Amino acid sequence: MAGVKLIGAGGYGGLGMIELLLRHPKLKLVTLVDVEGVGKPLSAMWPYMQGYCDTVIVAPDSPQAKDSPADVAVCATPDGVGQITGPVEVAAGRKVLDYSGDYRFNTLDLYRDYATRIGRDVAHKAPDLLKQSVYGLTELHRREIAKAKVVGNPGCFAMSCILGLAPAVKNRLVESVGLVCDCKTGVSGAGKKPAAAFHYPERYDTSNAYRLTGHQHVMEIERELSVLAGGPIQVTFTPQVVPMTRGILSTLYGRLAPGATQGAMLEAYRAFYGNEFFVKVRDFNEPASTGDVRGSNRAVLTVACDERTGAFRVISHIDNLVKGQAGSAVQNLNVMSGLEESLGLDLPGAHP
Amino acid sequence: MAGVKLIGAGGYGGLGMIELLLRHPKLKLVTLVDVEGVGKPLSAMWPYMQGYCDTVIVAPDSPQAKDSPADVAVCATPDGVGQITGPVEVAAGRKVLDYSGDYRFNTLDLYRDYATRIGRDVAHKAPDLLKQSVYGLTELHRREIAKAKVVGNPGCFAMSCILGLAPAVKNRLVESVGLVCDCKTGVSGAGKKPAAAFHYPERYDTSNAYRLTGHQHVMEIERELSVLAGGPIQVTFTPQVVPMTRGILSTLYGRLAPGATQGAMLEAYRAFYGNEFFVKVRDFNEPASTGDVRGSNRAVLTVACDERTGAFRVISHIDNLVKGQAGSAVQNLNVMSGLEESLGLDLPGAHP
Amino acid sequence: MAGVKLIGAGGYGGLGMIELLLRHPKLKLVTLVDVEGVGKPLSAMWPYMQGYCDTVIVAPDSPQAKDSPADVAVCATPDGVGQITGPVEVAAGRKVLDYSGDYRFNTLDLYRDYATRIGRDVAHKAPDLLKQSVYGLTELHRREIAKAKVVGNPGCFAMSCILGLAPAVKNRLVESVGLVCDCKTGVSGAGKKPAAAFHYPERYDTSNAYRLTGHQHVMEIERELSVLAGGPIQVTFTPQVVPMTRGILSTLYGRLAPGATQGAMLEAYRAFYGNEFFVKVRDFNEPASTGDVRGSNRAVLTVACDERTGAFRVISHIDNLVKGQAGSAVQNLNVMSGLEESLGLDLPGAHP
Amino acid sequence: MAGVKLIGAGGYGGLGMIELLLRHPKLKLVTLVDVEGVGKPLSAMWPYMQGYCDTVIVAPDSPQAKDSPADVAVCATPDGVGQITGPVEVAAGRKVLDYSGDYRFNTLDLYRDYATRIGRDVAHKAPDLLKQSVYGLTELHRREIAKAKVVGNPGCFAMSCILGLAPAVKNRLVESVGLVCDCKTGVSGAGKKPAAAFHYPERYDTSNAYRLTGHQHVMEIERELSVLAGGPIQVTFTPQVVPMTRGILSTLYGRLAPGATQGAMLEAYRAFYGNEFFVKVRDFNEPASTGDVRGSNRAVLTVACDERTGAFRVISHIDNLVKGQAGSAVQNLNVMSGLEESLGLDLPGAHP
Repeated sequence: MAGVKLIGAGGYGGLGMIELLLRHPKLKLVTLVDVEGVGKPLSAMWPYMQGYCDTVIVAPDSPQAKDSPADVAVCATPDGVGQITGPVEVAAGRKVLDYSGDYRFNTLDLYRDYATRIGRDVAHKAPDLLKQSVYGLTELHRREIAKAKVVGNPGCFAMSCILGLAPAVKNRLVESVGLVCDCKTGVSGAGKKPAAAFHYPERYDTSNAYRLTGHQHVMEIERELSVLAGGPIQVTFTPQVVPMTRGILSTLYGRLAPGATQGAMLEAYRAFYGNEFFVKVRDFNEPASTGDVRGSNRAVLTVACDERTGAFRVISHIDNLVKGQAGSAVQNLNVMSGLEESLGLDLPGAHP
Repeated sequence: MAGVKLIGAGGYGGLGMIELLLRHPKLKLVTLVDVEGVGKPLSAMWPYMQGYCDTVIVAPDSPQAKDSPADVAVCATPDGVGQITGPVEVAAGRKVLDYSGDYRFNTLDLYRDYATRIGRDVAHKAPDLLKQSVYGLTELHRREIAKAKVVGNPGCFAMSCILGLAPAVKNRLVESVGLVCDCKTGVSGAGKKPAAAFHYPERYDTSNAYRLTGHQHVMEIERELSVLAGGPIQVTFTPQVVPMTRGILSTLYGRLAPGATQGAMLEAYRAFYGNEFFVKVRDFNEPASTGDVRGSNRAVLTVACDERTGAFRVISHIDNLVKGQAGSAVQNLNVMSGLEESLGLDLPGAHP
Repeated sequence: MAGVKLIGAGGYGGLGMIELLLRHPKLKLVTLVDVEGVGKPLSAMWPYMQGYCDTVIVAPDSPQAKDSPADVAVCATPDGVGQITGPVEVAAGRKVLDYSGDYRFNTLDLYRDYATRIGRDVAHKAPDLLKQSVYGLTELHRREIAKAKVVGNPGCFAMSCILGLAPAVKNRLVESVGLVCDCKTGVSGAGKKPAAAFHYPERYDTSNAYRLTGHQHVMEIERELSVLAGGPIQVTFTPQVVPMTRGILSTLYGRLAPGATQGAMLEAYRAFYGNEFFVKVRDFNEPASTGDVRGSNRAVLTVACDERTGAFRVISHIDNLVKGQAGSAVQNLNVMSGLEESLGLDLPGAHP
Repeated sequence: MAGVKLIGAGGYGGLGMIELLLRHPKLKLVTLVDVEGVGKPLSAMWPYMQGYCDTVIVAPDSPQAKDSPADVAVCATPDGVGQITGPVEVAAGRKVLDYSGDYRFNTLDLYRDYATRIGRDVAHKAPDLLKQSVYGLTELHRREIAKAKVVGNPGCFAMSCILGLAPAVKNRLVESVGLVCDCKTGVSGAGKKPAAAFHYPERYDTSNAYRLTGHQHVMEIERELSVLAGGPIQVTFTPQVVPMTRGILSTLYGRLAPGATQGAMLEAYRAFYGNEFFVKVRDFNEPASTGDVRGSNRAVLTVACDERTGAFRVISHIDNLVKGQAGSAVQNLNVMSGLEESLGLDLPGAHP
């Protein structure tokens, strides 16, 4: 049994972690930290948790937070928090898993580019820890994750795109130029803070693209794909919001490499993900939707190349709050804690 | 460990049961029966179950169904099926839990009235079993349920109304004449079969009342309340559909009995449900919504009498597919199997 | 052709007015006033208006606002604005129609009670104008509205309840004690300002009651019904939000007066509203939903008494932003301007 | 004033036409034809039309249909009907506008390919009329439409894609190989017939791609773009459904031609659509959403090339039932009738 200290407990990312740990046989929440709701049970902020999680929230700098008996600290916090908290947690003997971009890049150069893009201070506050950090896409990096002190949990869009492109890129079945990630997300990806664009009357029956100058998730996608390809890869990335609460539907395009076919592509995807518990590969004529992954830690990848036009096409379906965030985080915590990777995660969501 | 045979596995009521049993430590699905999808895994019909429930569906009259090693049979089937299946299952040594109205009334007279109302044959096919049947509202009848051969699981609307009215009626804090149940349900209450009224473009942004001549659930409400009151009780019942998938919001009205106050009412509700794991009582100014119970087996009751006008008012919130159906069914199965009542049910839903 | 000065142009109530006036043959927007977006075209705030309404917004105290050539001023503003603006507009020779509660009560006593309930200063800023104000429920007061200087447009909930109860109360077919208004509204009723309760992920699939201590609309309902009844009437009022953008479904209950029947009730409603263009009466078994009135200025009233239980029941359906706000306002402007009452309003909404 | 005979009045496409003609000053509905609801007013099928359109529906082969005084016949009917009806209507002296694919291709060869793709008889029933037919994308073909006997109204997806790609293709600013149309539609595009995939509980919070082997609309897109390019153009087309009722968001990709920039592209789009009433061009950082076009006949095109990756990108927003169907049809009827093109169409939708 490993104890978890959850920092940023009251956001959607924190709630997702709490929900999963409540049913986890070997990981246990021991400390809830937040800057809102301090001194009150979590269930005062979120009544649906009454009787399930009445743990009192403590402040980040409180003795209870500092002296937490936890083995792992989860930073379910926005950019900038984890790079301050991380070294403190590590010094206290805890491994760290961070939800933000603070530990997704393990060089100062890459972090500088990322920070520039999101308009933050380009100087990382924990450069030594950054260099040791591991990108938490479990299917690609589980060995390093098992040994890591600090894991940077992937962005939700990035998770859907990297899983959806990795086999084609790795096997050079798609041309390296001209990759497109057309991504549609549900609104929960933006968090719990109200905003005009997510006000119910403005969002119902309304879809739109946003951040067309470049979403920050594109960087981790390109970094991971470049590693897989053994050379630089760029992607055109279009984030879009559709009136769902949960789910990402990423439609991924490129040009088929010479000789590549739908059949070969499907085979490559099945081989690549053959033993993966959380990735399912489907042929173009098999049913798939974001509804199939709602509430579960699964990614469903539909291989649907268009040989007529020479287009590579894969459709990636995840729940942005599970495989795209808290589920992936628990998957990493399992690996970091020496537990079976699927522990506490091997259940479907509720339907409908 | 008790084995469960699930008849009608492929409907929403069947799925709800499967989802709950997949995480249940002591109840195990051993046989899935349906008339659709026979010979294929359940996950062929419902892809989200791939890898979680790939059990092959068998026909009702197949040897696998008849010779099932199950201890309990759950009829997640429409009216009329359970009264044919019930005696066969009991003869095979299985206890029976039925989702429909087939075993909600334990006299032939009451059943005749009910059958008349829903336009079915008034002659019950298993009159002996009917007389032994127990109404499966666990909070009111757990002792009889523990010993029952056959349990009739309550209707979803009825569950919300009976729980919401019982303490007031029992304690005579509300006048017996003039009770009103204004009930709003999500669309999943109508099942998985497509219909014009539930076609997405016709249902989004649209609410309406229906069956204004009288919904069949009114009968079980009146029967249970009359027993509690020790005299005849009638209710005016208005079923309404709102554009949600899950959830029932029942607003219950009446006239305060002489001397009854908001304070006394709240106290009576807290006393009545003091030890109940699945019923939470809230004061008029505490937050509550159907979102608080989505995905959980909980009923939240807000006591909000209007002393100015002399009105009794309680607002009852449940998830129609959990406390209103499969969750309540598992709660009953636990009791029928001698297990702790909350086993497998003590988790919140996923938010948002 | 009459000119309209619209104060509070950029809220949902302002937009509704603009949409209706764009297609109105005799009323013309001449001045748009707001405190947001001053100096920019309305379409800069609301891109869907580009090319349709590019009128530049002016500040309340600007010369363009003061010297507007308008004949009528519409205050699509929150409580408190109209009582300051009203006298100035009247002094400038303009009639005034106000959306808020500022002119819904024509005595200082009633206003004091109302102001107390909503936590505002109990001293009305324009007491003389208040006394001359007319309640803008056109079907009940069109003669006074035609002559009024100042009209207080009804609250959206109040519109649905008063229309739904008036014939029964007037004809004494319902008992005067025990009236209940169970009202469900779409989210747009709360306006354009984001809030946690209306954040898309918190609102989808979620219904709840609110302000259970008493919603301010109850006062105008009781006042109007008392006038019709010739004696004091109280109602128990439960406001609820359901996940729709537009629409109010008000289910109205009471006890049938001795001898009152469904047949007599239906007849009374048909007689009361026989010639009304914007009110349709339906029998209990005729289809009706909020979808039928979405985008139109119509109220649909379903008479569905329950003779078995002695309950009076009428279901009232309106679009909260049309018959509940801007449509009703245009109806009043037509009357105030000596135009045909249905001008610019005799169109259905778009379906689906 | 021209009279319109509407065939297929009771579907969503028929309703859209009725709604627009109710407010049209010069086009008047004179005959409503359908195979459902014959002998009853349209408002019996669609209660929201009560009092607005109570015209009695007549059967296709009735004398009232044959001897209709209409000048134009609109076939709001599925594939196969218009090619039988068309010659009869033309012989009766009426111009014809057809919603289906029956008259979108003016050669037998192209029609054969199309019919093959949708699994219909490859022999067109009215080959002579087919050859004279004009593709009803008004912005590209208004001169021919003005003189046409038969106009084939574009498919909704095709409308969004052709408008979105035409300027780039025409001006050779995008490479001819590698075009991608990633299209998301609301559910109303599938019509009023209930189906499992559009059942409210299955559709809410759920997005998916479909018909990945090739949607039939791809043919008209390729035909029109090839004409503009002066050479063969292929597109990879991905139809997707998102939980909206109305709206299409098409994100269009390709490779920038050598030297092409975001600036040049924007300029080319503004030049191409400079005088068009129904097409608005926006820069990448200007707000746009399907909500901006809901209920209006407008297309909004956001030019958002990604110079970093060399990607052409345009985002096209329309209301599938207006610019994608009935609005475009009325625009064509205006042109065919010698009326101003925007007559009856120059209004925004209702917001929110």
